Amino acid sequence: MIFGIDAMGGDHAPSAIIEGAVEAQGFIDPKDTILLIGDEELIRDHLSQYKYSKDKIQIKHASQVIDMHDQPTRAFSSKTDSSINVGFRMLKEGEIDSFASSGNTGVMLVGSYYEIGVVQGLLRPTTTALVPKENGGSAVLLDVGTNPDVKPDVLNQFAVLGSIYAESLLGIKNPRVALLNIGSEDKKGNILLQSTFPLLQENKEINFVGNIEGRDIFDDKTDVIVTDGYTGNIVLKQLEAFHDIMVKRHADDPFVKRMDFENFGATPVIGINKPVLIGHGISGVKAFKNMILSSKKLISADLKSKIREKLSQNIVL
Amino acid sequence: MIFGIDAMGGDHAPSAIIEGAVEAQGFIDPKDTILLIGDEELIRDHLSQYKYSKDKIQIKHASQVIDMHDQPTRAFSSKTDSSINVGFRMLKEGEIDSFASSGNTGVMLVGSYYEIGVVQGLLRPTTTALVPKENGGSAVLLDVGTNPDVKPDVLNQFAVLGSIYAESLLGIKNPRVALLNIGSEDKKGNILLQSTFPLLQENKEINFVGNIEGRDIFDDKTDVIVTDGYTGNIVLKQLEAFHDIMVKRHADDPFVKRMDFENFGATPVIGINKPVLIGHGISGVKAFKNMILSSKKLISADLKSKIREKLSQNIVL
Repeated sequence: MIFGIDAMGGDHAPSAIIEGAVEAQGFIDPKDTILLIGDEELIRDHLSQYKYSKDKIQIKHASQVIDMHDQPTRAFSSKTDSSINVGFRMLKEGEIDSFASSGNTGVMLVGSYYEIGVVQGLLRPTTTALVPKENGGSAVLLDVGTNPDVKPDVLNQFAVLGSIYAESLLGIKNPRVALLNIGSEDKKGNILLQSTFPLLQENKEINFVGNIEGRDIFDDKTDVIVTDGYTGNIVLKQLEAFHDIMVKRHADDPFVKRMDFENFGATPVIGINKPVLIGHGISGVKAFKNMILSSKKLISADLKSKIREKLSQNIVL
Repeated sequence: MIFGIDAMGGDHAPSAIIEGAVEAQGFIDPKDTILLIGDEELIRDHLSQYKYSKDKIQIKHASQVIDMHDQPTRAFSSKTDSSINVGFRMLKEGEIDSFASSGNTGVMLVGSYYEIGVVQGLLRPTTTALVPKENGGSAVLLDVGTNPDVKPDVLNQFAVLGSIYAESLLGIKNPRVALLNIGSEDKKGNILLQSTFPLLQENKEINFVGNIEGRDIFDDKTDVIVTDGYTGNIVLKQLEAFHDIMVKRHADDPFVKRMDFENFGATPVIGINKPVLIGHGISGVKAFKNMILSSKKLISADLKSKIREKLSQNIVL
């Protein structure tokens, strides 16, 4: 397998990416390759500081860079030799098996939707985060910002996507799905949540366990937490803020440590036709290493086929 | 002043309320009285265990109790001799100066809106929470669950209400107001947030500082955090969950301790014609003590007059 990695994306590019790749190459299969996409000379310069297997880390030149402030659709259509564009083209052509970047999130989504394409029948692709439970497990939280405006049928599909993620990537059989709400009773919440609840109840493709509250986020009440991209984004970033403050205050607690986003490396874009991962702009070496290792898992999970199968079985979708 | 307190509301009623009242009476003015409303015999029984000044704690009998599962409008209109109904009637008639309860939140809101009434010109009353900042201060978060569905003009009024709260109760001059969003750029967010942003920019009654993200919640970037009641409720309860888990895990950290909701006692209902406070169902002795002490501050703050003044000055409202 070939894991395409944008060497130019994120606040600490390219140094942290290259160091992360060097760390990751010790953990990947002898047949697998990390392909660093970006300014060849710059990447070669950085790589020269390290010892690594030349078979496992290769370079694909891209002459342009999209930065965090570029307007997504304009940047994607004009900077055609940017590391992100080259990555998506190679993924589309099958020259790489996955593509990951910590660069401009908007551009990554434009590439995902228009170059790679949305799984047929799906209303909206999504992005997720893993929320640590106090008992040691994790729950899949979605959406975390890609879809700040959603309708009930979109949340109903997110419940299916989250279940597929929990089963395929976390190994949880028949994962429990809950709706994040302001109370646990069936009729609670705003119009969106009240309209979504019966759809989830009727959806035979998921194991719906009802509403959970914000206080239950770290409990073992569910495996998938469904919400809109506004609320989910705030939950995720509040969690990251709490982690960062507690680490700064020298809290030496395993639960707090599991809140570190760098453990996960990146979030896959769920619901598109090929494996794409988006990392945090502030990703460091550990995050990039985990981003590369997550790429392999994401390719093996073959989410696209599972989503297509569920969509074709479920007339709700 | 007479602080009316529902002795029958909350999971630990009446014992924790009565113990809280006994603790609070040492801190109140000689001219002030705590009026415990509920089953007289039961209250008298509990009070007999303590030493306290008979002038400072008095009892008003109410023969019925509304429980957490009662349907709000039905309970309020049928259980007319419940401790909550008696409390609201006395507040309306001026026999008490404030009313506070940790009972059924829905019933407390029904009483607030229909017995006490909404300040003229206000679209929606709201409830708030204080979020501890890492640097030692606090920010006012609103709404925290009373209004899970809102429109831009409602959020614009919340910004004013939050500013009045921060100025009157936290003593912050010209408090900064921010919109909780998924990014800091002006155009970020869902349709609600994108439509609210320009209203806040144009609102001359507030000191709007733009969007903040979930990661900024504990920073000193703002004094008032505006969001809808769904997202705000999740933020508040996630914060409470962090607190409870960290305390359980023996974290001895002043920042974590300041997340304890019992520090605040109760949230005032902002935007009604008289002082009403609603406590957490799980409130303990410390919370009830602080609920009583908060009552005095809320009466003195005279939010109603300040809200009326701002509403009449600002044609946006």
